[in-house]
Amino acid sequence: MAKMRVVIAGYGNVGRGVRQALARTEDMELVGIVSRSPERVRREVGDAVPVRALADSAAWVAEWQPDVAVLCGGSKQDLPVQGPELVKVVNTVDSFDNHSRLPEHFHAMDQAARENGHAAVISTGWDPGVFSMERVLANAFLGVRAYGFYGMTPKGGLSMGHSDALRGIEGVLDARQYTHAVPEAVERVRRGENPDFQPGDMHTRECLIVAEPGADLDRIRKEVVEMPGYFAPYRTTIEFVTQEELNARCAGFPHDGLVVAAGTTGDAGNSANVEYHCRWGSNPEATANILVAHARATVRLARHGGKGAYTILDIPPAYLSPLDREELLAHWM
Amino acid sequence: MAKMRVVIAGYGNVGRGVRQALARTEDMELVGIVSRSPERVRREVGDAVPVRALADSAAWVAEWQPDVAVLCGGSKQDLPVQGPELVKVVNTVDSFDNHSRLPEHFHAMDQAARENGHAAVISTGWDPGVFSMERVLANAFLGVRAYGFYGMTPKGGLSMGHSDALRGIEGVLDARQYTHAVPEAVERVRRGENPDFQPGDMHTRECLIVAEPGADLDRIRKEVVEMPGYFAPYRTTIEFVTQEELNARCAGFPHDGLVVAAGTTGDAGNSANVEYHCRWGSNPEATANILVAHARATVRLARHGGKGAYTILDIPPAYLSPLDREELLAHWM
Repeated sequence: MAKMRVVIAGYGNVGRGVRQALARTEDMELVGIVSRSPERVRREVGDAVPVRALADSAAWVAEWQPDVAVLCGGSKQDLPVQGPELVKVVNTVDSFDNHSRLPEHFHAMDQAARENGHAAVISTGWDPGVFSMERVLANAFLGVRAYGFYGMTPKGGLSMGHSDALRGIEGVLDARQYTHAVPEAVERVRRGENPDFQPGDMHTRECLIVAEPGADLDRIRKEVVEMPGYFAPYRTTIEFVTQEELNARCAGFPHDGLVVAAGTTGDAGNSANVEYHCRWGSNPEATANILVAHARATVRLARHGGKGAYTILDIPPAYLSPLDREELLAHWM
Repeated sequence: MAKMRVVIAGYGNVGRGVRQALARTEDMELVGIVSRSPERVRREVGDAVPVRALADSAAWVAEWQPDVAVLCGGSKQDLPVQGPELVKVVNTVDSFDNHSRLPEHFHAMDQAARENGHAAVISTGWDPGVFSMERVLANAFLGVRAYGFYGMTPKGGLSMGHSDALRGIEGVLDARQYTHAVPEAVERVRRGENPDFQPGDMHTRECLIVAEPGADLDRIRKEVVEMPGYFAPYRTTIEFVTQEELNARCAGFPHDGLVVAAGTTGDAGNSANVEYHCRWGSNPEATANILVAHARATVRLARHGGKGAYTILDIPPAYLSPLDREELLAHWM
């Protein structure tokens, strides 16, 4: 069987992860990378893989005949524009992760995909993505709410969005934000209380900040803890460190999370509890691995006549697997 | 929208659980119970729900017009016979759990279902079922093996099959078998060793036995630990107790399990670990809850033209949920 032909659209940390994940598969091959900055990408990847301007989509689709493009741009600026454009010419999969604008993205992708006879799998990765599926399944099985916690490990989970927010403050040279789940909150859910949490009840935020020499640390501290949405609702700790210390303590992009739901079964109220926990040494690489499995599913959806937008909730799990039906029935059920 | 009309076929612990789970749904209704022993079931349920002989399927299908039958018989004697017969007249969902004969059951159900234009979801519950899906997803995302452990809780998981095996020994009046995961084995998997385990490496077996007065306890002990498959490969502990003690210590049907997979992402080998853990106060009721969600999916598969056999791997997760697409997109992704 011919390998599925995959394009990477956007080459940052997730795009790099997708390239590395594709190299580990046997049923897919990378046919090219497209970027808004092809020169930068060419300098990085050399001659190993062809690189084109993202905007020249008619040309690279004609040249490469891709089965699917993995969209690795950002949810804020890139995907709302690139997604509906690219799905006109190729099947797509993306990790659009702005939960509040997700229905809007779905419908924009659905319309563009349907009009052009393509399949678009949106908003996959671990959250939204696998965690969404686990929440829906827990609810379907137990009839209760499912809760998401992040940063269950002692180190916590590195939040890129919150780190960026810190770096946007005047006088901040560099920063990292680690999210920590509140253990008591997790235990309340595990006990089946199904509590009504405010955001600040579930997580705390640990900030490591490198300030400019002579910066007003009290002002920075105040700006952080009062930043609406990002930090104001949360118990936030701030530690000022040197760049060297930050580099030493904050290597990589670790993250982890937990989906947990607890309810009862039967008339006697027997306890029932499900938990899904993931721990990633590299958040963007884990997202990339999940995207690559969904790229496989996207091609299969398209080959079975699928047109329009899909989420992980619309995909038979077998479509994500490289294993065939008889193998799955015999050894994986 | 009219409620989905559900029949329960077989009324033991799982069938009772299905009845209780259906009563908690808003989109499904129980239209009848069928059994090989309708008189026994009638004595138990009274006039609350009609009960018919399972064999009179043409009559009760004509009378009740069911959308789906939830098959709650045993995997050894009942389902291989009842399944292919019943799927001729109605869509079915079952929890056939003999892993080694699963492909055979799939193909038998597939043929009978296709020939009669019905959908048959087979082998669902928590294992096979949800655990199968979690194993396949972990492999699709990380490219590694996924391991199943049972009895992570201090109490362990009650194995009905092993308890039955103990009760089959001469001189045994009653017995329970609790399975315990070996903590060191779980840790080896979590560390990413991807070990080659023998069955006895992963679990131990705790037996509580009520012996007949005057029975030869050493002979019973020997028969247990030497029983091939069931106990011989495992470190097995045996405790002789009175019936009163057994009743006091062994109420209910608790069980729990863990799917765990650990690998790496990217060229630098960043760690990646996923775990799915469920804990059930009542194993048959949990199985019943999962069966009911799959009954919903079965009806939806059939309404979308689905014919033949399916497993959880072939079902879009949204089909299992009572929530509609816009609700899922807006609040559950």
